[in-house]
Amino acid sequence: MEFRFEDALPVLRRTPATLRALLIGLPEVWLRATEGPKTWSPFDIVGHMIHGERTDWMPRIEHLLEHGERIAFPPFDREAMFEASRGRTLVELLDEFAILRTANLERLQSLGLTPTDLSRRGRHPEFGVVTLEQHLATWVAHDLSHIAQIVRVMGRQYSETVGPWAAYLPMLGRRPG
Amino acid sequence: MEFRFEDALPVLRRTPATLRALLIGLPEVWLRATEGPKTWSPFDIVGHMIHGERTDWMPRIEHLLEHGERIAFPPFDREAMFEASRGRTLVELLDEFAILRTANLERLQSLGLTPTDLSRRGRHPEFGVVTLEQHLATWVAHDLSHIAQIVRVMGRQYSETVGPWAAYLPMLGRRPG
Repeated sequence: MEFRFEDALPVLRRTPATLRALLIGLPEVWLRATEGPKTWSPFDIVGHMIHGERTDWMPRIEHLLEHGERIAFPPFDREAMFEASRGRTLVELLDEFAILRTANLERLQSLGLTPTDLSRRGRHPEFGVVTLEQHLATWVAHDLSHIAQIVRVMGRQYSETVGPWAAYLPMLGRRPG
Repeated sequence: MEFRFEDALPVLRRTPATLRALLIGLPEVWLRATEGPKTWSPFDIVGHMIHGERTDWMPRIEHLLEHGERIAFPPFDREAMFEASRGRTLVELLDEFAILRTANLERLQSLGLTPTDLSRRGRHPEFGVVTLEQHLATWVAHDLSHIAQIVRVMGRQYSETVGPWAAYLPMLGRRPG
C-alpha cells in the first residue's frame, strides 16, 4: 500500500489511547512480563516508544528536510529506556508518550508536507539513502509492531497454560506435543 | 504462568476498549485490509471475536460444568462471521462485542468459580480431555492473539513501503533484499 498522510495520521493518533486501554491498571505480572532474558516487557516497550518520539521520528524528519542525503541521521539507541524508565510508573510513561505524540503530530502537520515531499531523500546511518515516505511508513509500522509485541509478550505467559489449544495460537510460539 | 482469575479478568475486561481505541474511525483501507486471499481483515476478526462470545467461551464453560468429560463441546465455527457480519458496520460490531463481553464476564463471575474448579475437566471435540484452566487461559490468549493479528494485518500493508526498515520489523513478514 502506498503511503498517504490521510491513512497514516489516524493510526499514529490512536496509539496512545490504544496503549492506555490495553495496559492501564493491569496487574504488574503482565506489565513486567518478558519473553525471557534480554527481551522486553510491556513497560520496557512503552519506554522505547517514548525514546522514539524524543529522538527518532520527528527529529529525523527535520534532519532529512534540512540535510538531505548529505548528513546521516544520528543513530537511534533502541535500549535507552532501560535507563530512562527506571523508577517511573507505567502511567507516567503512558502520559509522557501521549503528550510527545500529540506534540510530534502537530510539528509534522505544521511542516505542511505534501505527497511530492514523500520522495525526498535522507541518509540512514546503516541503510544509506532512504526516503521520507519510507521513514513515515516505518513510524506507523513501528507503532503497530510494538503493539503486537506487547500483546505477544502477554499472551506467551500462557503458552503452557492453554494446553492443547496452543495448536490454534501460533503467536504463543509453542508447538503442541 | 499459572492461571489466576485476578490476572485474567483484567485482560478480558480491557479488550473491547482496546479494539475501540485502535479501530474506531480508521479509514476503511485499514479496516478491510487483509494479508491476501483467504486471510482475515480487522473487520472480519472483530466478527470472529463476537462469534466466540456467543458460542464458545461462556457456553463451553457452562457445558464443561454440566457435562464434564461425558459430552464433547459443540464444534466452534471459526468462519461464521463472514455471514454474520455482512452489511454491518465496524462500530456496530464493536458495540456488540463490548455488550457480549460484559455480559459474559458477569455470567462468569456469577458462577463463583474458585481455584479448585480450574482442574475440572471437559471434552474438546478435537483435543479430547481439557481442563477449565486451559479453556480460561485460551480465552485470554485468544483475545491477545487477535489484537496482534489486527495490528499485523495493518502493519503489513506497509511491508514494501517501509523500504529497508523491514529489516527491523519482522512482523511485516518481508526480508529485505
